[in-house]
Amino acid sequence: MNDSPAPDADGGPQPDGHLIEVRTGGEDVYRGRLLHIRCDRVRLPDGSEATREYIVHPGAAMIIPILPDGRLLMERQYRYPIGEVMLEFPAGKLDPGEPALVTAQRELLEETGYRAERWEWLAGVHPVISYSTERIEIYLATGLTLERAQLDAGEFLETVTLDFADAYARMKAGTITDVKTIIGLYQLRDRGWN
Amino acid sequence: MNDSPAPDADGGPQPDGHLIEVRTGGEDVYRGRLLHIRCDRVRLPDGSEATREYIVHPGAAMIIPILPDGRLLMERQYRYPIGEVMLEFPAGKLDPGEPALVTAQRELLEETGYRAERWEWLAGVHPVISYSTERIEIYLATGLTLERAQLDAGEFLETVTLDFADAYARMKAGTITDVKTIIGLYQLRDRGWN
Repeated sequence: MNDSPAPDADGGPQPDGHLIEVRTGGEDVYRGRLLHIRCDRVRLPDGSEATREYIVHPGAAMIIPILPDGRLLMERQYRYPIGEVMLEFPAGKLDPGEPALVTAQRELLEETGYRAERWEWLAGVHPVISYSTERIEIYLATGLTLERAQLDAGEFLETVTLDFADAYARMKAGTITDVKTIIGLYQLRDRGWN
Repeated sequence: MNDSPAPDADGGPQPDGHLIEVRTGGEDVYRGRLLHIRCDRVRLPDGSEATREYIVHPGAAMIIPILPDGRLLMERQYRYPIGEVMLEFPAGKLDPGEPALVTAQRELLEETGYRAERWEWLAGVHPVISYSTERIEIYLATGLTLERAQLDAGEFLETVTLDFADAYARMKAGTITDVKTIIGLYQLRDRGWN
């Protein structure tokens, strides 16, 4: 990569000083039932000031659950902001202080009724780098056994099972548009699924 | 897929009536410099009421720009909510009423100084289905010629060029974590890049 690091005042390397923004103040500007918005004042690389408004998010975990017969366990859920029933891998927000793996295990059980014997972390991704701190940890879950789903009040979804090839074809056809689910399917293909 | 459509009152098919939420009211709850938050009241599938809080977003366009020598044109930009300089494809928000392709052409020129001769729409994806209406249209841009970048005031970024293999390796190693950029790289691989 053809980076052109700018030297710092001492002439030493400070590769990203020409890009980095430094917080000089800020406050919570909105705390709703779901969303927490902050607005910070920052000093820009040229010394001028600006504001940065963004969602403070606890992080999330997504699970790619593989049934013993090799089929994928997915969910169909109405996503109100999009106005569509969407096909997606199970996922949920971290509770305060909760490790992402624990979130993944909890959400898989609550939403689908399954427990997994084996868990493998695959990746961490940022869905909204311009306006949210959210990071999603992606786990592969295998050795699934059915217990019983315990949906939260007000949560309506159905679990469905699909062959990988079916899910991948739906993604390529543009009927799966959820970024975390798309990346999960590509992750499986990277691991030799087809 | 093993959907189990619930019949509607007439016995006819109403496949997703057991999932769909219906808006019964709502209001803007926050309008900041960047973010616009709505909170709607909805009727849930079981007839109970709930609220749905989400960001109203105009949509965005991302560009995968390929230089005449086959290298990828990317950007390094400090993303304040993440607190990191991130390597990503150029992207930007739609201006009101602006077609996504026009946004893509405008952002490519403003941020990198390049115009592209050929544009191809590859996909539309939803980065945040739980709390934002945002949809990102992804375009492949080829036949690039350099004019001059016109960064917005307060915008600091550097353009960099990478071989596909280098960018893809960085993604697999977990140093590219921006979802839209990850999906763009997978899209290129789908088209035979390696």
